[in-house]
This record gives sequence, C-alpha cells and structure tokens, in this order.
Amino acid sequence: MSDPRPIGVFDSGIGGLTVLAALRTLLPDERLLYLGDTARLPYGTKSAETVVRYARRAAAYLAHHDIKLLVVACNTASAAALEPLTECTPVPVIGVVWPGARVAVVGTAGTVGVIGTESTIASGAYVRALHSLEPDLAVHARACPLFVPLAEEGWFDHEVTRAVARIYLEPLARAGVDTLILGCTHYPLLRGAIAGAIGSDVRLVDSAAATAAEVDGVLRRGGLAGTGGGSVHLLVTDAAARFARLASLILGDAAVPLELIDLPD
Amino acid sequence: MSDPRPIGVFDSGIGGLTVLAALRTLLPDERLLYLGDTARLPYGTKSAETVVRYARRAAAYLAHHDIKLLVVACNTASAAALEPLTECTPVPVIGVVWPGARVAVVGTAGTVGVIGTESTIASGAYVRALHSLEPDLAVHARACPLFVPLAEEGWFDHEVTRAVARIYLEPLARAGVDTLILGCTHYPLLRGAIAGAIGSDVRLVDSAAATAAEVDGVLRRGGLAGTGGGSVHLLVTDAAARFARLASLILGDAAVPLELIDLPD
Repeated sequence: MSDPRPIGVFDSGIGGLTVLAALRTLLPDERLLYLGDTARLPYGTKSAETVVRYARRAAAYLAHHDIKLLVVACNTASAAALEPLTECTPVPVIGVVWPGARVAVVGTAGTVGVIGTESTIASGAYVRALHSLEPDLAVHARACPLFVPLAEEGWFDHEVTRAVARIYLEPLARAGVDTLILGCTHYPLLRGAIAGAIGSDVRLVDSAAATAAEVDGVLRRGGLAGTGGGSVHLLVTDAAARFARLASLILGDAAVPLELIDLPD
Repeated sequence: MSDPRPIGVFDSGIGGLTVLAALRTLLPDERLLYLGDTARLPYGTKSAETVVRYARRAAAYLAHHDIKLLVVACNTASAAALEPLTECTPVPVIGVVWPGARVAVVGTAGTVGVIGTESTIASGAYVRALHSLEPDLAVHARACPLFVPLAEEGWFDHEVTRAVARIYLEPLARAGVDTLILGCTHYPLLRGAIAGAIGSDVRLVDSAAATAAEVDGVLRRGGLAGTGGGSVHLLVTDAAARFARLASLILGDAAVPLELIDLPD
C-alpha cells in the first residue's frame, strides 16, 4: 500500500527548512511541498491569536493541494496553533513540540532546558508537554530573540553569535541542565555556538530529526508511505530571492524549485 | 489660522517612535496619532510590492481618522511606497528619506555613508536622493540587518551591539565617510554604539529630527498648525504588551494611551 500524495510542510520562513532537510534524509521517497509564509514572518514576536490566523490560512492552502499529512515545522505555530489546525485540517497534523519533548525526557538525568522565540517560550507549550510526560522534571526555559536574526544573517558560528549564546545560556548552564531542547527550527543552524556556550556534556535535542521520525511512524502505521519519485517543491509568500539564498545554504542544493505565491489576505 | 486635526504617523513597529518623540518635542501643540503595524513587522526584509500593499492599508486607516498630514516614519516604507501613498492619500505625505538626505548634503565634505535595513538599502532610495541633491557626492551604503533586533532586545549600548557595529561599519570607516545617515528609525537608539564604531569625528544624521523639522515647515506654510491640547495616541495591530514596554523605553513616559486595532487583511 502506498500513497503518492505530497507531505505538506509549513513554517513562517526558512527555519522549517531544517525539518524539511531531516524529512528528505529519512524519507527520500516522499514528495515534500514546503510553504514558507515569508510575507508575515517572523511569527515568534507576534500574539497567539495572530499566529493562529496566519497558520490557518497556510494550512488551508496546503490542504487544497491534496496533501496526505501536514507538518507544522515552526515551534511558534506548533505551540500556539496545533489544536485549531488539527480541527480544521482533514489530514493528520504533526507539530515539532511533542516530538522534541518526547526525545528530551528519554535519557535526561532530570533537568531539561528549553530555548525558543519569545512567543514559543511565553506559550509554555514545552513546559506543559515535558511535565505531562514526566511530572517531576525540572524545566528551565529561556527566550533567545536574537538567535533567529543571527541565523538569517548567516552568522552560524560567528564570534558575535558565540557571545550572544553565552549571555542567553548562562542561566541554563548555571541551573545544571543536562539536556537542552532547541525549541526553534532555526537553532540547529547555530548548533556549534550553542554547544560551545552550554558545554559539550549537555545533550542538544534537535526537534527536526525527532519530528521526521514521528512523521515516518505515522505514515507507516497509516499505510500512507510513498514509493519512489521523492521531490522537494518550495512555495513562499514574499521575497523569493532572499529565501532562495538561505534555502540553498540550509538544504545544500544549488537550486530547488521555488514558487512565489499569493496567500489571500 | 489653526487646524486641530491630528497628524498621522505610521511605521511597521516601534522604530517610528523615534520620529514621534522628535515631533512631540518640536511640536508640543499637535495631536499625534501613531499606528504601528506590528502584526506585519518587520517590513525591512520584505519585497517592495508587499511593503506598498501594507503601507497603503495603514495610510487608508489613518486617513479615515481625519488626519491633516501623514508622516511615513519608516525608512523601508518611505523608500518603497512614498509615491503610491502620495497618490492615494488626500493629505500631504512626508517620508523620512528626503529630510535625512537634505540634512546630510549640507555640511558634508563629500563622502556620505548610509546604513539601513536590507530592503531600504536595496531600494537605492537614499543614493538617488543624495545624488539628485548633489551629483558629485561619493555615497557608500550598507545594510545592517541585526541592528533592528538588537534595538528591540533593548541592547542599545551593549558589548554585542558594539561588536556588530564594528563589523558592519568597518567598510564605511575605511571609505572615509564624514557623514553617516542613520537610515532606519530604530538606529538612533543605537547611537552610542554606532558613534563608537564609525569614529566620533563622523557626523551622524538622525532623520527623526530632520523629518520633524520638515513637518513643522509644511504645517506653517499650509496654515495647518495646531494650537494647544497636544497629545499622543498609539495604535498597534498586534502584541500590544511588547510594544508598550518598548514604547515607554523610547518615549520616556510611564504610560501612553495604547489601543490594539484590527487592520482588515
């Protein structure tokens, strides 16, 4: 049994491309349709109501393109909008918060750190997910607003990024976290600087890989896996040139088909 | 002759508050109605078409509130959308690019630097304005994408901001600019770090003050000046709490009336 329909992947911008890359690696036979809502990015500084409104529109667009599963490859939207999206989308919806939380609780000695955008951290979604999996866990959360612009500047392992990481992560290091969830899909791009600041003995949980593994499981259980003809198609709502430059950096491809679309306002 | 109608001031977010502060200082008798389109910020990484669409919507909203003059207190929108806004708005429209350029050409020894967002610099608006005022000027422009997030983080004169400023401004210092236009309304907040990096002998042109002076002139010449009862009213399209925190930092007021509005999409 196989299902040739594409998997829809959605993010506010480029961050979700780390999830797309993980999906492509784990599931090379799948057609992947990625929508970056770059006309409205970033979501991470906006209110939950606004994020829900934007996310609904993007999900509806992808649902019209006959997807078999929707991946919300954005922590902010996963934290704020997963339930509303599940209600209004006719296919399974997978966010990045729960897969990351599940990987974090397996193997922690008891103290977990979470970093993300202001909006993701303010939502408390990771703390709730972690505590419902493991009520006795000590959880320390910290918003890191400059990490996304530093990643988008391409300063992945730059001296400035290392200095910012030391400032943001010092309280978490002091709290003795043994596991750190990279709760924003941009953050794996800064893995070197983050590891340097938090200490190499701290385990970093990248929700991109965890999410790809969860998608794999849902496809297999539901008889939805594709067979052959894997592909990647990118859609953006604005500034395609800027996106294309960052996309080839993250995906490591010279050119991936990229289309500028108009998401009706 | 006097005109009690408010002056409309528009920006994508908080940056334009530096222009608002300059207007309030120079024109204490005016009613100022500020609209920060925080649901769509930042404009600086978006395409010109999208910026025009957003700016039109904001201008139409303010025009409905019976303003006597519109200040586009955003360099990105001034660079991309001033002509379309002038066409569709029934009152005088003043942007921040020309006032800054006019101040810069008076008193330069011949080499001017311009810094701004990616979108403002890509538009070439400052270079065109400067060259039409003074064709023989040497102009060096540089996008500084991290300055806005650093300002929004409140790291105005932080060691990280000074390090970023040194990296961004080194080519302009090497080119021997004698005047530097702060071509983004956020940048006056980072004045200390910028002055330290470019050298204290370089004149910094803050378009906020230049724009306020131009508004004063237009009001006087048109018989539009207000008399007494000056006030400030702030409107935002999203995340009012975050905006309020930054607004009191910039305006130096504990509390300014702030209203969350819905700009129809």
